[in-house]
Amino acid sequence: MYSERKPIMIQEAINLVLDYRKYGDLEYVPIEESDNRYLKYPVKADHDIPPFDRSPLDGFAIKAEDTTYATHSNPVELEVIETVGAGSLAQQVPIKGQAIRIMTGAKIPKGTDVIVMFELTREIVREGKLFIVIKRPFKPGDNISFQAEETKIGDILVEAGRKVDPGVKALLATFGYSKVPVVKQPIVGVYATGTELLDVNEVLLPGKIRNSNSYMINSQITKAGAIPKYYGKLVDDFDHCFNAISSALTEVDILITTGGVSVGDYDFLPLIYEKLGANVLFNKIGMRPGSITTVAEYKGKILYGLSGNPSACYVAFELLVRPWIQSYLSSNSPHLQMVTGILKQDFPKPNPFVRFIRSKMTIESGMIYAEPVGLDKSGVVTSLANSNALIVLPGGSRGYKQGDKVDILLLNGEGSNTMLKKSKNNLE
Amino acid sequence: MYSERKPIMIQEAINLVLDYRKYGDLEYVPIEESDNRYLKYPVKADHDIPPFDRSPLDGFAIKAEDTTYATHSNPVELEVIETVGAGSLAQQVPIKGQAIRIMTGAKIPKGTDVIVMFELTREIVREGKLFIVIKRPFKPGDNISFQAEETKIGDILVEAGRKVDPGVKALLATFGYSKVPVVKQPIVGVYATGTELLDVNEVLLPGKIRNSNSYMINSQITKAGAIPKYYGKLVDDFDHCFNAISSALTEVDILITTGGVSVGDYDFLPLIYEKLGANVLFNKIGMRPGSITTVAEYKGKILYGLSGNPSACYVAFELLVRPWIQSYLSSNSPHLQMVTGILKQDFPKPNPFVRFIRSKMTIESGMIYAEPVGLDKSGVVTSLANSNALIVLPGGSRGYKQGDKVDILLLNGEGSNTMLKKSKNNLE
Repeated sequence: MYSERKPIMIQEAINLVLDYRKYGDLEYVPIEESDNRYLKYPVKADHDIPPFDRSPLDGFAIKAEDTTYATHSNPVELEVIETVGAGSLAQQVPIKGQAIRIMTGAKIPKGTDVIVMFELTREIVREGKLFIVIKRPFKPGDNISFQAEETKIGDILVEAGRKVDPGVKALLATFGYSKVPVVKQPIVGVYATGTELLDVNEVLLPGKIRNSNSYMINSQITKAGAIPKYYGKLVDDFDHCFNAISSALTEVDILITTGGVSVGDYDFLPLIYEKLGANVLFNKIGMRPGSITTVAEYKGKILYGLSGNPSACYVAFELLVRPWIQSYLSSNSPHLQMVTGILKQDFPKPNPFVRFIRSKMTIESGMIYAEPVGLDKSGVVTSLANSNALIVLPGGSRGYKQGDKVDILLLNGEGSNTMLKKSKNNLE
Repeated sequence: MYSERKPIMIQEAINLVLDYRKYGDLEYVPIEESDNRYLKYPVKADHDIPPFDRSPLDGFAIKAEDTTYATHSNPVELEVIETVGAGSLAQQVPIKGQAIRIMTGAKIPKGTDVIVMFELTREIVREGKLFIVIKRPFKPGDNISFQAEETKIGDILVEAGRKVDPGVKALLATFGYSKVPVVKQPIVGVYATGTELLDVNEVLLPGKIRNSNSYMINSQITKAGAIPKYYGKLVDDFDHCFNAISSALTEVDILITTGGVSVGDYDFLPLIYEKLGANVLFNKIGMRPGSITTVAEYKGKILYGLSGNPSACYVAFELLVRPWIQSYLSSNSPHLQMVTGILKQDFPKPNPFVRFIRSKMTIESGMIYAEPVGLDKSGVVTSLANSNALIVLPGGSRGYKQGDKVDILLLNGEGSNTMLKKSKNNLE
């Protein structure tokens, strides 16, 4: 069953996968459930902000002209005729010499054009009437938040494709989005292959290991914004696998399998793709880890055959599956964000192929640093838990020294609208 | 009702709040539901990794001594007596001159000490028996992943207080954590005050605005790892407010109110704290926005009186509420992460008090930059949606120029175990 495979470059692999990208449908969700969903439409202002001229502080609404000659030694006294709280409207229109006590957020009363804060006034009572004393002049408009000074009705405030976070949520509420137009989440099926796999609740047996990839990938799927549908483990039987995968394909948007794509005797996936009549986009990538990643397309749906090795599986997901999911969600930053940083320790290994090294990125004195975490064997699961980045070392390099500049993919970053950099790194 | 308040420094305010920190109880959740929860206990290896000597590739298990004299011109031929897949165990023990075909992940068969990959062998059939041809010598241990070479049983792999992410999840699955010990999430009550507030689904009326703070804060609470419990709006009536707040306090771990803490005529919160007999920790902070933030403690529970201004509310939550929640969750990084970066545009305003400016942080050529987003009025809600950081400008400064180094708090960063830096910024 062994046959030579021709590796393609990772950049090309990403391109091939994204040739089959799709865009998710619109659905409306209650604003309370919109966190972390992706906007299908831009958020538009349904009214001006502020919606009316309003007071930005607690104080008195007055007429500027009443204060023209006010000084410390010759203060002016204004009669307070009414108090208006936020959400209420003044009932009276002050004439010359009158003021209205006003609270933060209240609409500026007719006939007034200045707000004077409490702290700049003194209150006195004369003949049973309340007056304020003002010792300096004000200009019309002083301390007034004018209608639309922040936002005009119809303004686009957040673009489609943005993830809903607390700041976006505040805008959605402000503009009356009790139902939020978001992109329907794609359903991503997951099958694990391998007779050696035990469930997480099973006791370890000789020659067996627990299935960690499925749990990890389900988390990655959720984090990328999609809905995982875990189908369980496939046993090493061709017909069983073929039927299971054919059937799952009718229920999901894309399907991920882990394991079974290498050249072993029980690596059925290549044969399943063949029997399905799927279009194999590639079955080897010139990178480490994850070189044996296979991706096929069947009736417009992508079948990802990821490695059974946890790190290979993790990396291939982030590079090839995440962008598909995020594109589906209209995200403006479907790819991992790549930044430049400084290597904190030597990496003496030569790299015949581009290498993605599990790493810890830190920010020190305004600069980005990264260092490899633990061993760099593709079966190493423990280092994944302590990584927040992947250092990218180009193929053909002879090793790197502490202090060298390297490319770093951020696993928890803001994402990027471009793929891996095309620059010096020879990734395509 | 107006009285002078004495501001304290933000650093001191954080200290005062955290004097009342609590630690959440243990609960077990199914591994499938553990994403983004915080670990109550460290993750320990319940077995070695690898759990046995295993094959890292598809090939043949042989005895090194059989290849001692193998060369290109004088190859050695070994009889293949069995095939063993991952998850299965070899049934036979090879004698001199014999080999076992073996798949990635399978246990190394007894009597063998080398794995030779398929690519370095050639298969031939002689007298109905299968042989492989090997043209070079191997050393014992070549291509074997040894038991425990990655992790030993009992090793602590992830500390308590870590958030479960895909990498942590893989470890949890590997080590049999079908139920994950996490910290019970605190319940954070939210009340909005203000007669001016409309619900998100209501039509705008003169003098009214929609309640955006509650939705925003509910998102912030969720993002910080707690469970929001939104109680709705309080009307401007003292007795009603007092009863509502007294009652809510029996159901939550901490209680947030927005609005009602200033010096306005309808700002009841100070009086409610007084009637409750709550211990007011502070009622003014020397910072912008958020200066009128009030925090009180009642029977060990924190009452946060946040400003009704969206940005003031947002900032005070991140600086004062988030650390309490994250401490409760055992997080090792309860505070926002502070980094140094370069200001991308002038900020000419002088800062009598420390200022937290809604900003966009970017990484360019390995360096951190930040620039203010939109206006910097505390009522401005639109800029929050486009911020991922807060530039921190110290009090007493006369403005900053493009290119100046500034402190930056990351809103989506990894958090920090230290509070705001104590250095040059005069924050305490």
